[in-house]
Amino acid sequence: MTDRVPVLKIGEILLVSIQIDLEDEMVLDLQEDLSQKIVSAGAKGVVIDISALEIVDSFVGRMLATIASISRMLGAETVVVGMRPAVAMTLVELGLSLQGVRTALNLERGLKLLRRLSTAHSARP
Amino acid sequence: MTDRVPVLKIGEILLVSIQIDLEDEMVLDLQEDLSQKIVSAGAKGVVIDISALEIVDSFVGRMLATIASISRMLGAETVVVGMRPAVAMTLVELGLSLQGVRTALNLERGLKLLRRLSTAHSARP
Repeated sequence: MTDRVPVLKIGEILLVSIQIDLEDEMVLDLQEDLSQKIVSAGAKGVVIDISALEIVDSFVGRMLATIASISRMLGAETVVVGMRPAVAMTLVELGLSLQGVRTALNLERGLKLLRRLSTAHSARP
Repeated sequence: MTDRVPVLKIGEILLVSIQIDLEDEMVLDLQEDLSQKIVSAGAKGVVIDISALEIVDSFVGRMLATIASISRMLGAETVVVGMRPAVAMTLVELGLSLQGVRTALNLERGLKLLRRLSTAHSARP
């Protein structure tokens, strides 16, 4: 059993796979690990896979939004991937729209989206 | 809390991040999910990240070896990445050498190794 969620690196992208219900402290650890790794790796994007999660409540929703905000301030876009259909339906029913969080169907599409965003950014004057 | 370990796909590579102590049934589910996904995705390689694991005992060691054997039969090479130094030391002390399991320091090096292996395979007559 681990106390920290691993942050994996693929080129300029960081990948986090959330598989367990996170306690408050694990969320703080994850935010810290991720921030440090964005800076040290010069990461341009973060992918958070939630395909293992059967339930996404307001706590998890807030965590995703916070991670996206922190990452953006450090120059990295965040994409949440792998959301189950039932989770999407529940989120809408609860009125939790994950504002400010981009989503994609799966990891591959998430990576594509990040590449597109990164190109768009570098094309700016 | 999930009952299954997610199997992520990046091109021809499948990625599994093991973060919790797996029960027998979860191991069987993972082997089944992974086998099916290797076939359906035509995957050439499997990366198993164990950076979250503080302890790798003979049960986990056998699981990694079994996954590597199954994957090989389906045409995919397996690389275990992210092993902690303390885990490596304990494995050697216990005489568990993870026979038949390739390892690499981290995800990026594991992906590189798989690409090299894949090229070597296709270069064969």
